[in-house]
Amino acid sequence: MNGAESLLAAARDAGVAVCFANPGTTELPLVEAFDSVGGIRTVLGLAEGVVTGAADGYARMAGRPAMTLLHLGPGFANGIANLHNARRARTPVINVIGEHATWHQAADPPLAADIDSLARPVSGWVGRTSGAAAAASEFLDARQAALRDRMPATLIAAADHMWDDGGETAAVPPEPAPAAVDRHRVAGIAKLLAGPGRPALLLGGAALGADGIRLGARIAAVTGGDVFAERNPARIERGPDVPAVRSLPYFPEDTLTALQDYTHLVLVGTGIPVAFFGYRGQPSVPVPEHVQVHTLADLDEDAVDALGAVADATGATSVEPPVRERPALRSPRGELHAKAVAIAIALSQPDRSIIVNEGVTAAAAYPAVASAAPAHTELGLTGGAIGMGIPVATGAALACPDRPVINLQADGSAAYTVQGLWTQARERLDVTTVICANSRYRILEAELGRAGVREPGPAATGMTDLGAPAVDWVALATGFGVPAVRATTGEELTAALENAYAEPGPHLVEAVLP
Amino acid sequence: MNGAESLLAAARDAGVAVCFANPGTTELPLVEAFDSVGGIRTVLGLAEGVVTGAADGYARMAGRPAMTLLHLGPGFANGIANLHNARRARTPVINVIGEHATWHQAADPPLAADIDSLARPVSGWVGRTSGAAAAASEFLDARQAALRDRMPATLIAAADHMWDDGGETAAVPPEPAPAAVDRHRVAGIAKLLAGPGRPALLLGGAALGADGIRLGARIAAVTGGDVFAERNPARIERGPDVPAVRSLPYFPEDTLTALQDYTHLVLVGTGIPVAFFGYRGQPSVPVPEHVQVHTLADLDEDAVDALGAVADATGATSVEPPVRERPALRSPRGELHAKAVAIAIALSQPDRSIIVNEGVTAAAAYPAVASAAPAHTELGLTGGAIGMGIPVATGAALACPDRPVINLQADGSAAYTVQGLWTQARERLDVTTVICANSRYRILEAELGRAGVREPGPAATGMTDLGAPAVDWVALATGFGVPAVRATTGEELTAALENAYAEPGPHLVEAVLP
Repeated sequence: MNGAESLLAAARDAGVAVCFANPGTTELPLVEAFDSVGGIRTVLGLAEGVVTGAADGYARMAGRPAMTLLHLGPGFANGIANLHNARRARTPVINVIGEHATWHQAADPPLAADIDSLARPVSGWVGRTSGAAAAASEFLDARQAALRDRMPATLIAAADHMWDDGGETAAVPPEPAPAAVDRHRVAGIAKLLAGPGRPALLLGGAALGADGIRLGARIAAVTGGDVFAERNPARIERGPDVPAVRSLPYFPEDTLTALQDYTHLVLVGTGIPVAFFGYRGQPSVPVPEHVQVHTLADLDEDAVDALGAVADATGATSVEPPVRERPALRSPRGELHAKAVAIAIALSQPDRSIIVNEGVTAAAAYPAVASAAPAHTELGLTGGAIGMGIPVATGAALACPDRPVINLQADGSAAYTVQGLWTQARERLDVTTVICANSRYRILEAELGRAGVREPGPAATGMTDLGAPAVDWVALATGFGVPAVRATTGEELTAALENAYAEPGPHLVEAVLP
Repeated sequence: MNGAESLLAAARDAGVAVCFANPGTTELPLVEAFDSVGGIRTVLGLAEGVVTGAADGYARMAGRPAMTLLHLGPGFANGIANLHNARRARTPVINVIGEHATWHQAADPPLAADIDSLARPVSGWVGRTSGAAAAASEFLDARQAALRDRMPATLIAAADHMWDDGGETAAVPPEPAPAAVDRHRVAGIAKLLAGPGRPALLLGGAALGADGIRLGARIAAVTGGDVFAERNPARIERGPDVPAVRSLPYFPEDTLTALQDYTHLVLVGTGIPVAFFGYRGQPSVPVPEHVQVHTLADLDEDAVDALGAVADATGATSVEPPVRERPALRSPRGELHAKAVAIAIALSQPDRSIIVNEGVTAAAAYPAVASAAPAHTELGLTGGAIGMGIPVATGAALACPDRPVINLQADGSAAYTVQGLWTQARERLDVTTVICANSRYRILEAELGRAGVREPGPAATGMTDLGAPAVDWVALATGFGVPAVRATTGEELTAALENAYAEPGPHLVEAVLP
């Protein structure tokens, strides 16, 4: 057994079932070992942004760490942006990066680079193999770190350590559990909520599962407050049996308004709200001064357990959570706009769909109409690094082959990682990509307007307009092996969606927006 | 004048004529300033790998630094792989990265990341703006570092420093010149070359310009040696008036063989040859033990001047350089193969073309037949980070609008940065992309074979085969606005190439290889 075989045997024994990969020469001992060890499905991405984004989507849905295999510093670098999103989503990802043979590194060959410096900004743990004998245990160290830190961990595996004989087996340690919340803190929050004032509960992380949302809604029903979801959650459950929660808005002035009428803000599995960008005259932390901020559970603590304890203490456990009526939406007709796309999806999506929302400016419309949809899971753009939608949808579909995946996708962002469509075709995944084709970086136009630019000049226009030439998304999808159609009206969009859900395998619908 | 305006005025005054960009909200003060300052053309890439690769190609051909504008850590990260190639090409690139406003950074907003840690591996210089007043001089510090170090330099520009008033003008310092070679060293090398033995001159960097190659060939003609080009040169000139030089091979055993019959190896503007990867049983530095290695000019020294001095000292200046006869090649007919693609290009390419060679396994065929072609410049894959071809061709076409650009392009690598075709369409660039579509990572198959894997298993096959589904390059090009055709025979390829050269604007030809 060589080092590569011992590493992959440990990965398999630790429950790694899929490895997302784009290997090169330094990873070939591992490529060979996938065949000799067995038990791990390899999924190829045509660029590393696809690989790492798919790993993020897979782990968010599978509830276990994802593995990637990447080629040296430059190959890893191509995957950093989606690992940044994974870090912000608190997704455990185990990256294995092939490195030059140890005796070759001093020669500074062309592909040599400071991998550690590249890896640290997106990894809670960065390590290097020390030899074939320790490769398995070092992989398990990375896995343990990814689970403990809830973020990517990166193991840099030298080629000679992988091809050398002498690999040893290693025992898989138990998964670390989230820390329990201190009961005194629970009692204090329960007392606070039962007292005077109007509290807002801000849920994030695991608290946005169905159990957490139901507990939050029960508590709010008893204590007279409201429940909010953090902006851009990694994963949130919705459906007829899950009370609707408001999302915190994007711009800080809107968040200030949303929180204006509360006396307390209780954080549950999330941190204090932070403005996405710093704006002149707006605060970094958009919480009104009169609002007192408390933490029930921080990001490392068991937020659902804490909510259960607060529900017990406030008498909320026996209360039925309020059920918001499903809004009566009409199927969109005529020319498309962002909200019409969101409504068409909400009204047509099959039960238990997974919605990957990288709509950017179109994304905001979906949560507002999602309570009209059957039960579903939504995955969001956590870290703001665009290009996550197509890859995350790919990984989610691999994690949940029995659930339809719908990717509500901005066009500017889709262009970043459009190569992911090929992996969807290759793996025959049930993903429907809906491109919101407005042929512009609409968010930048909006930001220019906020900055007081009424009539952008040619340079500014040239850097926000994607219309000359307009990208033909049907052609791109076809080129990567995904059947595609264009929709210009609500009727066409609904028909295209229903066809896509009915046929197995991936589809793309280009929704042409004005 | 705000900080952004002062920075761009300094850039314009320093000769920056083009900025390759994919900006976001933190760069908007700079986006606005392009319009108010004027004089710098902005070129948008749909992904940052396109932006940085285009900057590399532009600077290689323009002979002056290129500028990029990138969005925070994740946007920069997407551009790292092609900056790695730029670093190995010794290309001066000035990156400006927009960063969150200084007062917002402590809040750790979603897009915050350790930009410095990401930038250092590909930058000789990393700095941060200190305020609006110093922004111009700090940009010029970055430019000076890029020119001095011959590699990218990165300035991280905080949004508030850009939008704040108080920008000041700054004087542009003179460009640093390469260091002159010590005359004693020149005399020693000249004496060595004139003495007994058989020397090999290994040229790199600026020595692969027409003057350097001619001087090298004259010296070799007088001293009885041979001239080699470093493997994967950033830029090499060829043509009827430039003596042909052999390229060092890819695999170390072949390099050992190529150098076996020499007594001395004289390095001129390059370092000692290093194996691309470390292979079991092969040396890191594939130079036979009996070969004595000498440096005439290191990478920072004026290699062409040094060659001129050696030519003077050896009496080579007055010698006519040997002219190798142009090989008599026949236009390829019937089914295509890698060499047929290379020949079809060499026989059809217009005078003064720029060949961007990212053929990977198909790339090796071109230099061997290039002496049949009219005068041209070839740009190579210096750092091994694939995905450079389409972007570098884009930048080269912007630098040299009067020269046709031909991109000999492997399919696996093209998939990395295929978005660059859109920029070629938008800017109406005379680029002809020839995709060598073998639907596999052929280099990995070859490396598996070298590693003794005779019959790769399904996992190994799945990570080298790109044929299920085969990418439709004609559809992809069409989707990005570039006219495209498919060629399956030599006749079709030649006809498609001639049509592409005759029509203005970009074209793509998918050359289907078995």
